[in-house]
Amino acid sequence: MTAIDLAIIGFGKIARDQHRAALDASPVFNLAAVVDPVARPEGLTAYPEIGALLRQSPRVQAVSLCTPPQVRFAVARQALLAGKHVLLEKPPGTTVSEVMTLQRIARDQGRVLFAAWHSQFAPGIPGAKAWLADKRITRITVTWREDVRRWHPGQDWIFAPGGTGVFDPGINAYSILTHILPVALYTTAATLEFPENRDTPIAAQLTMLTEEGAPVDLDFDFRETGPQTWDMQIDTDRGRLDLSQGGATVLIEGRAVASESSLSGEYDRIYARFAQLIQRGTSEVDLAPFRHVADAMMLGRRIQTEAFAW
Amino acid sequence: MTAIDLAIIGFGKIARDQHRAALDASPVFNLAAVVDPVARPEGLTAYPEIGALLRQSPRVQAVSLCTPPQVRFAVARQALLAGKHVLLEKPPGTTVSEVMTLQRIARDQGRVLFAAWHSQFAPGIPGAKAWLADKRITRITVTWREDVRRWHPGQDWIFAPGGTGVFDPGINAYSILTHILPVALYTTAATLEFPENRDTPIAAQLTMLTEEGAPVDLDFDFRETGPQTWDMQIDTDRGRLDLSQGGATVLIEGRAVASESSLSGEYDRIYARFAQLIQRGTSEVDLAPFRHVADAMMLGRRIQTEAFAW
Repeated sequence: MTAIDLAIIGFGKIARDQHRAALDASPVFNLAAVVDPVARPEGLTAYPEIGALLRQSPRVQAVSLCTPPQVRFAVARQALLAGKHVLLEKPPGTTVSEVMTLQRIARDQGRVLFAAWHSQFAPGIPGAKAWLADKRITRITVTWREDVRRWHPGQDWIFAPGGTGVFDPGINAYSILTHILPVALYTTAATLEFPENRDTPIAAQLTMLTEEGAPVDLDFDFRETGPQTWDMQIDTDRGRLDLSQGGATVLIEGRAVASESSLSGEYDRIYARFAQLIQRGTSEVDLAPFRHVADAMMLGRRIQTEAFAW
Repeated sequence: MTAIDLAIIGFGKIARDQHRAALDASPVFNLAAVVDPVARPEGLTAYPEIGALLRQSPRVQAVSLCTPPQVRFAVARQALLAGKHVLLEKPPGTTVSEVMTLQRIARDQGRVLFAAWHSQFAPGIPGAKAWLADKRITRITVTWREDVRRWHPGQDWIFAPGGTGVFDPGINAYSILTHILPVALYTTAATLEFPENRDTPIAAQLTMLTEEGAPVDLDFDFRETGPQTWDMQIDTDRGRLDLSQGGATVLIEGRAVASESSLSGEYDRIYARFAQLIQRGTSEVDLAPFRHVADAMMLGRRIQTEAFAW
């Protein structure tokens, strides 16, 4: 496979923290440019908006969309219509319908659309999925508690409409569940805590059921200043699985599951997958995590809590 | 086709106002029983819950689910697993995931699942769809304003989580749009007005775009005590379509479109369609209207308004 020139669109925290290093280490992709209204990273060609990229860097074949979700759809559509393959950071948009429209455009254009759920690429995930495949789930408990000030400092978009608030980390838990479980889940009740000065929830308590009726309890909280927790416990008819650190560690009946990949990080594996999808000409869009957010927001009971300030 | 014994589950307002008469007039269905915790309509066998129906009326082959949406999923699942064909009143559930799970169960069981959107069966709809098929949409305005006290007197479920509030009528507008338009829509902004003592919105102002970028403005309001309005105006590159009374009347460039059906009412056509689907062994579940509600609830800016009392 010859090198694929790729541009990052939206050179914010996740692009700097994760995408750039993964691309520098990639044997397939060449980070050819960035598009950002402000950032001018050293050693990279930068454009202020995607139109300039499309006109001036025609050799770019793929783009990674790392902007806040609120502006992602229009840019993704423009990129696909210009014949580029598109990787969408999570969440893939602000509405399920947007993402389905992008799927249709990618199909019409014969280009690859990849909704990247980074937690699905955590080291323990393949082993967890393989072990669960023939088990019956009896109970699931998910605890996803982190400090928004530490992980998203000053990122107001997360509390603006379309930013999904605590579901921004919570969707990582959903993306793990929908990937590793052998059964479907659906939400039966949700309590959403909205700060009085914000448009998205800062905490959510969710009750789901597996299709077979096993209880699934999820506790998402963005106000955790103590130990940061991204854990789930999955009880089955034949033993228990404990996932912690967002999938970095998985214990089955207390014994650690080894990573199957030689690649070191989630984003290294994401770009290896993107390369594979481009080679095959196949899109990959798992909509279920995002649909569970929409379901919770539609079904949830809303509680107003104290104003949030950074 | 021999007569199909059918039971109505949930014998509330919509069952009494619409389903019973349509079934009495149906040449295909025989209303064999009702299931309701309270209602004991004259001349019909009544059971207090679905288990009793399944045990005592084994000849019933199909059920119509007219309960509030909050309890629909569990009953629909039980009916499908017992081998019954299922018609779901609108909305088809409380979450998109529930309905997708029912789709999967219906497929596994070889039974028909029919999500009935009654507005798609309004008289003007086939003519509107046929005329729009080769037009380019340039602008859409939707006004859906009604008095909740008049149409849903005392129905507290509508303001409970999962009841969707003003989207209960609003979803009729969505169901018309997704059925007659030749392009996809997606929501770009929403303002949702929540009464301070209720869990679902009483009014919503929505901004959507067609995939080609034409503006779509929707005004849903449950507080309209003046003239009741269920109208849409669709401007195209070659003329204008006006739909009023929820699809009962459609004008194209000012001229009325005639109904193509010999059946008199929306629910007569719904049951004719259900019979056809059962004969063919094909399910029909248009999820787009419900997905637009979930999208609006996920993306919407929330405003608190005055308490609502019947």
